[in-house]
Amino acid sequence: MKVKGKDYRTVWMEGTSVFLIEQNLLPFEFKIYQAKNYSDTCNAIKTMMIRGAGAIGAAAGFAMAQAFLEAPKKNFRYFIEKAKKNIEATRPTAQNLFYAVNRVFTACKNFPDNIRKSQEVAVTEAQNIADEDAENSRKIGEYGNKLIKDGFNIETHCNAGWLAFVDYGTALSPIYFAHKCGKKVFVYVDETRPRSQGARLTAWELNNEKIPHVIVPDNAGAYLMSEGKIDIMLVGADRIAQNGDVANKIGTFEKAIVAKEFGIPFYVAAPTSTIDLNCKSGKDITIEQRSEDEVLYQTGSTKDGRLEKILVCSPGSKAINPAFNITPAKYITGIITEKGIIKPGEMKVAVSSRQ
Amino acid sequence: MKVKGKDYRTVWMEGTSVFLIEQNLLPFEFKIYQAKNYSDTCNAIKTMMIRGAGAIGAAAGFAMAQAFLEAPKKNFRYFIEKAKKNIEATRPTAQNLFYAVNRVFTACKNFPDNIRKSQEVAVTEAQNIADEDAENSRKIGEYGNKLIKDGFNIETHCNAGWLAFVDYGTALSPIYFAHKCGKKVFVYVDETRPRSQGARLTAWELNNEKIPHVIVPDNAGAYLMSEGKIDIMLVGADRIAQNGDVANKIGTFEKAIVAKEFGIPFYVAAPTSTIDLNCKSGKDITIEQRSEDEVLYQTGSTKDGRLEKILVCSPGSKAINPAFNITPAKYITGIITEKGIIKPGEMKVAVSSRQ
Repeated sequence: MKVKGKDYRTVWMEGTSVFLIEQNLLPFEFKIYQAKNYSDTCNAIKTMMIRGAGAIGAAAGFAMAQAFLEAPKKNFRYFIEKAKKNIEATRPTAQNLFYAVNRVFTACKNFPDNIRKSQEVAVTEAQNIADEDAENSRKIGEYGNKLIKDGFNIETHCNAGWLAFVDYGTALSPIYFAHKCGKKVFVYVDETRPRSQGARLTAWELNNEKIPHVIVPDNAGAYLMSEGKIDIMLVGADRIAQNGDVANKIGTFEKAIVAKEFGIPFYVAAPTSTIDLNCKSGKDITIEQRSEDEVLYQTGSTKDGRLEKILVCSPGSKAINPAFNITPAKYITGIITEKGIIKPGEMKVAVSSRQ
Repeated sequence: MKVKGKDYRTVWMEGTSVFLIEQNLLPFEFKIYQAKNYSDTCNAIKTMMIRGAGAIGAAAGFAMAQAFLEAPKKNFRYFIEKAKKNIEATRPTAQNLFYAVNRVFTACKNFPDNIRKSQEVAVTEAQNIADEDAENSRKIGEYGNKLIKDGFNIETHCNAGWLAFVDYGTALSPIYFAHKCGKKVFVYVDETRPRSQGARLTAWELNNEKIPHVIVPDNAGAYLMSEGKIDIMLVGADRIAQNGDVANKIGTFEKAIVAKEFGIPFYVAAPTSTIDLNCKSGKDITIEQRSEDEVLYQTGSTKDGRLEKILVCSPGSKAINPAFNITPAKYITGIITEKGIIKPGEMKVAVSSRQ
């Protein structure tokens, strides 16, 4: 997608470096970060310099490729296996991360004694993952577009836009397609506390694309739905279990319950790589508990354009910060994938068709 | 309740001035504001220097008394009627405000030609309203305490503590009583964006009273409830319609839907003065739409203790800010009043017993 007239992906590899849009600085500053080795890339994932299911996956694939390029000849295998574990430990809930790391690792398995060849294969496979992510997002946009009628009001939670993937996004991709087709759409953007990815990233994306939208406090969901303001809700996913339970940003579950109460279609948009058949249900998915500081403090821009971090809660009180929640399959109308729109009960079929 | 060892009410009258705790500065600074005339008091209500159903009511009653004291002999009646309208226009959703203004106004009706007498009556009636508010809150605490078992985990939304009333509070009053009785309680405090009254005021109150608690992002409600972490939810009310529909802080409706989904008791705590029989249902209640700046900006304390206002959303995007929502009666388990715990269908009986 374009930023200031120039085409960008969220993450890419050049030589031994990984480049990525520094999302922690958005929406106030647009800057590219150069991760010179796999540890830098791990750190970028961990500190959420890059975030979002697909973008994390692509970055993790590139990090794995970097590890192959960095590994010393002596202890090559040991270095790679340690790197794999380190990369996997950065964000425990992100299915795409495990998917990408494993794909690069497995692709190189056939060349145990040929370091050069395995390095080439690792870089190619990481690039393939990034390219497929972009293409899958594009297809999700095409399929999802069919659900959007002219004049629709759409609510979305968190950021499942192009910033969360390599390009296009998932939940926002159908909206971009509908807009391009000339349909009139209006987007209600959930703020998505505590990190406010809706208010900061989704609003920034929609602003860049000149799509009419408004930022909504997370608390206003039921109010908007009860007033008949929402025609459809579109969200992303960080992991989908075999039974169709969906792990996504904290608050998604609450919105799904409320949407069901008002009979509003609730769609999850995600590539089939997000489906994890090893998880029978949402109960098998680890929920990441992040630092309370993300709740207690907020960072933003002062009047004179400085970035400032302020305490927004009562001093001396503690906070909890579960980053995700599991939305059980029964609350989900359908899942928009690159293979088409499927029901939450059809995960196995979707996965078998992805190769 | 005590602040730094000294007893305070949120608002009181001395001579012709109204004094109030400047809640906009909390939790970072504790300061008393002196409103020298009724316009000052109106402004304090409008800018939410004082907020919360009962505190607004008491302040409005005192403002009305100030108007009686200020009114010129010539045009006395005209001044009072204009003042009444001005006070009523400060916060259109707050039932207690209309209740208090009308009570002071009506009490003085019998003395149309005796200015002195009507001034005396106005001050006395305003004081009665404040005293009754405190006493009602105390009784709500006694009744509500019966719902709380030893070891309970309680979720609350916004601030319906003593800061929102003259003393004790409503939703928090039962918690204070349970704590005093030696019951072990733990409070999950919803942050309550956009103005974060939970994270700022409720947490501050609970901290002062040393009641174990944690601040929760509004998005985490369904997660906590689905994990079995919440035994009961207690919230306040800004207005209750004849059919038991409840107007309260934005987000209350969403929590009520989710609580019902998980079979968690959802109680509203409010004095019977909050019941407005003129409103047949929630549809008759005006929802205040506040400035988008409350969503777009956050004010808090910097590392060096300055108060700083920062932009926390994407520059160039707009926001909506409905301050309240209506929770239909069917989602409410019961209403804790100073007359006892009643069902949402029993509003008329409750009101007839209040005189």
